Amino acid sequence: MTIAGIDLNMLANAGFPLASFEPGEVVFAEGDKGDKMYVVRSGEIDIERDGVVAETLSAGGIFGEMALIDGSPRSATARAKTACEVAPINEKSFLFLVHETPFFAIAVMRTLAERLRRSVPRG
Amino acid sequence: MTIAGIDLNMLANAGFPLASFEPGEVVFAEGDKGDKMYVVRSGEIDIERDGVVAETLSAGGIFGEMALIDGSPRSATARAKTACEVAPINEKSFLFLVHETPFFAIAVMRTLAERLRRSVPRG
Repeated sequence: MTIAGIDLNMLANAGFPLASFEPGEVVFAEGDKGDKMYVVRSGEIDIERDGVVAETLSAGGIFGEMALIDGSPRSATARAKTACEVAPINEKSFLFLVHETPFFAIAVMRTLAERLRRSVPRG
Repeated sequence: MTIAGIDLNMLANAGFPLASFEPGEVVFAEGDKGDKMYVVRSGEIDIERDGVVAETLSAGGIFGEMALIDGSPRSATARAKTACEVAPINEKSFLFLVHETPFFAIAVMRTLAERLRRSVPRG
């Protein structure tokens, strides 16, 4: 077991019910109250902040984890860039996955760490 | 079991060997290669970026988790603000804790999420 190279596709393939979005459709909007995170199963999702695309996620990518972890309003808007399928994960499933699947917890941490490194201005 | 209100003191109290630092002493420096994270047991730790204190941690706070999660060099310097004791956690212990202690994984995620929210400029 190593930390590097974890693939969240296994999660998206693990039988969580999927939600479908058409291009341009909003999954959630900045400022919304949130109680789910999402794993991208197919297609692409844009993460927009103040109307600017900060990140584009494809299969295996996760988003919306912040509101689930700390209960704060959505810090960004998630919009389907293409037709896409995502697996919504509510708090109960999240706690189950963290408990039963260390890979899942580490993948969420890695995603947060990557976003944090990108967001910190380097001197 | 809820996500809010997790206290990492239980970890610092759980028998991990402690390291002591005198005021001003550097635990690690920005750019160092890192293979451990730390939980503050007593005293205070300053997290410095480009010579500026970005955050001060006290008992139960965690730091150094980024390098452990993604293997990148230290993104900040950690320096003892007061005499302090910290519990170093290497990769093996980290993986054990994530596996055995969902509270630990969630606390690490929460710390990352808090830092990320603070670091994103708000429009």
